Amino acid sequence: MTASPSLIVLDWGTTSLRAYLLDDRGHVLDTRSEPHGIMHVPDSNFSAVFDAITADWPALASIGAGMIGSANGWVEVPYCAAPAGIDELVAGLTLVPNAPLNIVPGVATNGALPNVMRGEETQIVGALDLHSGLASKSRLVLPGTHSKWVDVADGRITDITSFMTGELFAILRDHSILGRFASDPAPIDDAFARGVVAAKDSAEGISPLLFSARSLVLTRRLAAGSSLEYLSGLLIGEELRCGLMTGARPDALIGDATLCHRYDVAFSLFDIHDIPIIDGAAHAGLFSIAKRAGLTTAAQ
Amino acid sequence: MTASPSLIVLDWGTTSLRAYLLDDRGHVLDTRSEPHGIMHVPDSNFSAVFDAITADWPALASIGAGMIGSANGWVEVPYCAAPAGIDELVAGLTLVPNAPLNIVPGVATNGALPNVMRGEETQIVGALDLHSGLASKSRLVLPGTHSKWVDVADGRITDITSFMTGELFAILRDHSILGRFASDPAPIDDAFARGVVAAKDSAEGISPLLFSARSLVLTRRLAAGSSLEYLSGLLIGEELRCGLMTGARPDALIGDATLCHRYDVAFSLFDIHDIPIIDGAAHAGLFSIAKRAGLTTAAQ
Repeated sequence: MTASPSLIVLDWGTTSLRAYLLDDRGHVLDTRSEPHGIMHVPDSNFSAVFDAITADWPALASIGAGMIGSANGWVEVPYCAAPAGIDELVAGLTLVPNAPLNIVPGVATNGALPNVMRGEETQIVGALDLHSGLASKSRLVLPGTHSKWVDVADGRITDITSFMTGELFAILRDHSILGRFASDPAPIDDAFARGVVAAKDSAEGISPLLFSARSLVLTRRLAAGSSLEYLSGLLIGEELRCGLMTGARPDALIGDATLCHRYDVAFSLFDIHDIPIIDGAAHAGLFSIAKRAGLTTAAQ
Repeated sequence: MTASPSLIVLDWGTTSLRAYLLDDRGHVLDTRSEPHGIMHVPDSNFSAVFDAITADWPALASIGAGMIGSANGWVEVPYCAAPAGIDELVAGLTLVPNAPLNIVPGVATNGALPNVMRGEETQIVGALDLHSGLASKSRLVLPGTHSKWVDVADGRITDITSFMTGELFAILRDHSILGRFASDPAPIDDAFARGVVAAKDSAEGISPLLFSARSLVLTRRLAAGSSLEYLSGLLIGEELRCGLMTGARPDALIGDATLCHRYDVAFSLFDIHDIPIIDGAAHAGLFSIAKRAGLTTAAQ
């Protein structure tokens, strides 16, 4: 028997858009991607981008998550207050007016300093579905532009910490003195590990160390071609130093496999080994939420 | 008796160039500035920029400090190794070939993570000249693009710590999500102090707090127009938190009066009050070094 298309899911972030055609068990039948993240939607015409990326696919229910539900997205969907799990996310699903797209809400915590996420809540639903042992109590790390460290209890997101690691790396590389004189990457060397260890061993954090990505080059103790790897190590090492100060070791890394591997190497320098890496969590989570909401043809 | 011109001094940094015509006691007779920092010298023709900014002034000895002596400046002048004071700087003075300009060397420390400065060593010479009580033992803070915390003993620079506070603020404002949605500044409110205190009270440092400059706005607990003041408070507060963890309280703030005042407000939130602010240290230092080197007409 050929699997029949059942659902269209969209992972629609700030810089990219990925669409998946899924069968009634959540398996991927087809996938497409476009650089039309919400900051790059021609004429802010979300409807046209949606129509184009789903062209020729069957007319099915569709569901999306990510910055598409932000104030700068297609429709602003209010955050779910933590603790939030799949039931709270289903309750907050919002149908775009005059379009067949349901958008998953983000999640916000409300401590002295609030934290927010859009998209990661869906990856977490997917990760808990793929690895049911994580649901009762776990700590999940989602590396990225804005990395999230998320505590889960009883299948619900209870706490969030955000680190701007990926964005800081990109703007320091592209716009600061640290990137201005960096040459092409050197062959793989120990510069990344050197940065991680410098951050790990710092009592105060990396604020007084950041400039060493330049001064080590100026004093010829680091190759110019290694300085960005060293900077990456400093920033990821700082994230781990801070994250590990405030709680348990992570139970899983969720996201792009290449980036998760980089974090895994850094964790090993903190003597934390063998953290499972979960890829493909976004479409798994979107399928789970759609199924719970009765949106898939399978559940109807 | 009319004071007669004795020396031309140049404070030549990355983004700006300031020239002073001094009399034989170091008093300023005339001053000029151009946006021709070393990154903005037309056709890299340093000689033409020098001739233009000194046009119509008497043909006198001249001395300069700052990034003009870096690898991307007019002539690369090797760093003096710390400990370094006025005698070491005089010994390292380098005359530009075919030009009447002497360039003051920067200073480098050589610990596990080296630190370097170009220009600040000259401001410190000036500050010690203006406030002789600082020479025997002091800690000096020079706020800026790359803030420097400098320990001085027996009139010599013994240790340097660099913080990229000013550059981080500028690139986060201009290129990150934190600046993208910030609106025009709100009327002065407590956002700067709120940021300083959040950094001061953080156990791990600001890495997990940086995103609050966005999340507080998203959750309507900080006005969009105040978010850059809050960010400035976070970054300056982090510099103070780290700097104060590793040594004594500062004895002076050196540099632009407006920026030093901002640091003074931040220090007061760390319960450190009445730090003297020293402005005009750059040309004072250049005069002292020139005099010691026998470059001024007064000393000849």
